[in-house]
Amino acid sequence: MNVDLNELTGRAGEWMKGAGPQSDIVISSRIRLARNIAEFPFIRRCTATDRAAIDKAVRDRLAEVPKLNDLYYLRVDELSDVDRHFLAERQLISRELVEAEGARSVAIDPGERLSLMINEEDHLRIQVMKSGFDLVAAWDQINEVDDLLESKLTYAFHDKLGYLTACPTNVGTGMRVSVMLHLPALVITQQIEKVFRSLQKINLAVRGLYGEGSQAMGDFYQISNQITLGRSEIELRNQVHDVVPMIIDYERRARDFLLKQNQQDLHDKISRAYGILRTAQTISSEETMHLLSSVRMGVNLGLIDDLMIADINKLFVDTQPAHLQKLRGGPLDTAGRNSERALYLRRYLSQKEKDGADQN
Amino acid sequence: MNVDLNELTGRAGEWMKGAGPQSDIVISSRIRLARNIAEFPFIRRCTATDRAAIDKAVRDRLAEVPKLNDLYYLRVDELSDVDRHFLAERQLISRELVEAEGARSVAIDPGERLSLMINEEDHLRIQVMKSGFDLVAAWDQINEVDDLLESKLTYAFHDKLGYLTACPTNVGTGMRVSVMLHLPALVITQQIEKVFRSLQKINLAVRGLYGEGSQAMGDFYQISNQITLGRSEIELRNQVHDVVPMIIDYERRARDFLLKQNQQDLHDKISRAYGILRTAQTISSEETMHLLSSVRMGVNLGLIDDLMIADINKLFVDTQPAHLQKLRGGPLDTAGRNSERALYLRRYLSQKEKDGADQN
Repeated sequence: MNVDLNELTGRAGEWMKGAGPQSDIVISSRIRLARNIAEFPFIRRCTATDRAAIDKAVRDRLAEVPKLNDLYYLRVDELSDVDRHFLAERQLISRELVEAEGARSVAIDPGERLSLMINEEDHLRIQVMKSGFDLVAAWDQINEVDDLLESKLTYAFHDKLGYLTACPTNVGTGMRVSVMLHLPALVITQQIEKVFRSLQKINLAVRGLYGEGSQAMGDFYQISNQITLGRSEIELRNQVHDVVPMIIDYERRARDFLLKQNQQDLHDKISRAYGILRTAQTISSEETMHLLSSVRMGVNLGLIDDLMIADINKLFVDTQPAHLQKLRGGPLDTAGRNSERALYLRRYLSQKEKDGADQN
Repeated sequence: MNVDLNELTGRAGEWMKGAGPQSDIVISSRIRLARNIAEFPFIRRCTATDRAAIDKAVRDRLAEVPKLNDLYYLRVDELSDVDRHFLAERQLISRELVEAEGARSVAIDPGERLSLMINEEDHLRIQVMKSGFDLVAAWDQINEVDDLLESKLTYAFHDKLGYLTACPTNVGTGMRVSVMLHLPALVITQQIEKVFRSLQKINLAVRGLYGEGSQAMGDFYQISNQITLGRSEIELRNQVHDVVPMIIDYERRARDFLLKQNQQDLHDKISRAYGILRTAQTISSEETMHLLSSVRMGVNLGLIDDLMIADINKLFVDTQPAHLQKLRGGPLDTAGRNSERALYLRRYLSQKEKDGADQN
């Protein structure tokens, strides 16, 4: 099933909905499985012909599975650069798949909860994303998808090691469990480093919004397991699952502290951030993330009435470079994007303010 | 005629109207004359009894002059500290009169164009203020008031020196001619120092908003004559009168340059300033002046539609400490003022925005 990417532009993907459990602090819960097909060499050793054959094999098998044959199937190497980045900004593909070479694809369900990357670091990367804190549902879905695929494909599997992967860090379960958290109060109260050190001690990794090596912009932090071997999938899932409520609790306490300590200063910071977003004539992506982070906390604390969390999540995505260019319908340089971003924010937020005023 | 100062609170004084010639750049034109009554010693040598006698003498003579007998006459030493500062913020009295000791007064016309300070540095300081660039009208009025007073009081006058004053710098005409200019573009383009040096070379002084020693907040600069002796009143008036159009021209060129150079950056700066003023929950007087200065230029350049110059001038005055406390109806500490100031700005500007939206 093919899809016009422009169709996705106006929609809210799964993680933007802000609808799941604890979605004031937890943006999304994600699980991915790394899988390889036994009959092909690992990607690094593949010829162009191998890659094309892998791509075709996966596509053909998907068509045979009733529950997976309605996925959008996109040849990433045939997309424009803007479209590739567009998919990455929606977290449907990884930065690695954007920058990889040769035949590579992604299959996405229309709700943007499931995505299958073909020819990323491994032949297959299965990813399920849920809004809010919902790792159990994510596991149930990915486990079913994995079983469905395994009924059609022979995975590279070793009796003692488990699933074989291109990088040794993924061998075993091939599973990465991650939760994206919004932790502005821990950042303001300078407790975030302490939280990170505690997580590292129990072998959990902390990363920015776009995974490995990316900066933690907008106070978003992704927490995930580092170990994939020697534990069951459920154990790995539970390790992340059990620690997240503690971090949520720390963040809530930090927010309470800020409110008690000096509600006016916090309100001032949040309110000014909202004011700048509504009036800037040119604004960078980084400043936008920074200000939206304040506003998001303001919505959660009841200090801003006009907006809902879904609005903020949508703005986080829509103001990124590829989304802006898709919305504008043409390429834009940095200055052009900064101007278009400011225009988009002003229009969106003044409409919301108007809607809010009409309701009162 | 007595006056309840609360009556003035809601009103716009002469210099706030923004109605006079060139009022996009010239806030006000002011002339003051220093006079002393021959039968009394200079203020510094006065006893408390002398001061009271001077105050009574002036008050009694004013009552005899038909054109001056409807002035509000206020005993400044009997006012509260907030009320004294309130008058200074409206530029009806000087900081010196606020801080002086003993019997002292001010007589003000209801339109706040004329004010007579009694027992400031000299027995009498006559001041006439006009909105915009209007020194000729200011001179005509002050000359008439001076003649009316001189018909009732014997001024200290020396045939060769002219009017005698407490400070030698005022001897002769006792006249200071000053024009208050708003020069944000010369500040941004870093040409303001150059302009000042040129003015100093022709013996003109440059000061901030509240006269001698005060900081130039909000890009307001007061230009005035330094020499009072050896030239006629008309010559002194013309010296300032002739130089102001050149400064206005420099400022306009600097604005054009900024618009051509990078209209978007200028618009961004102005628009954000407006956004912060509309949303801050706490804001200092200094930051308010700074932001209002940007917004004032924005209104003049047609980049902000909701406001008129009169609104900005009013906000400059109303957000100052004594005005805020008068508006609130009680004393406020710094934190309380910063909060009240932000509240006042939000209410005023959201009302203007609403009015603007209703008109469109």
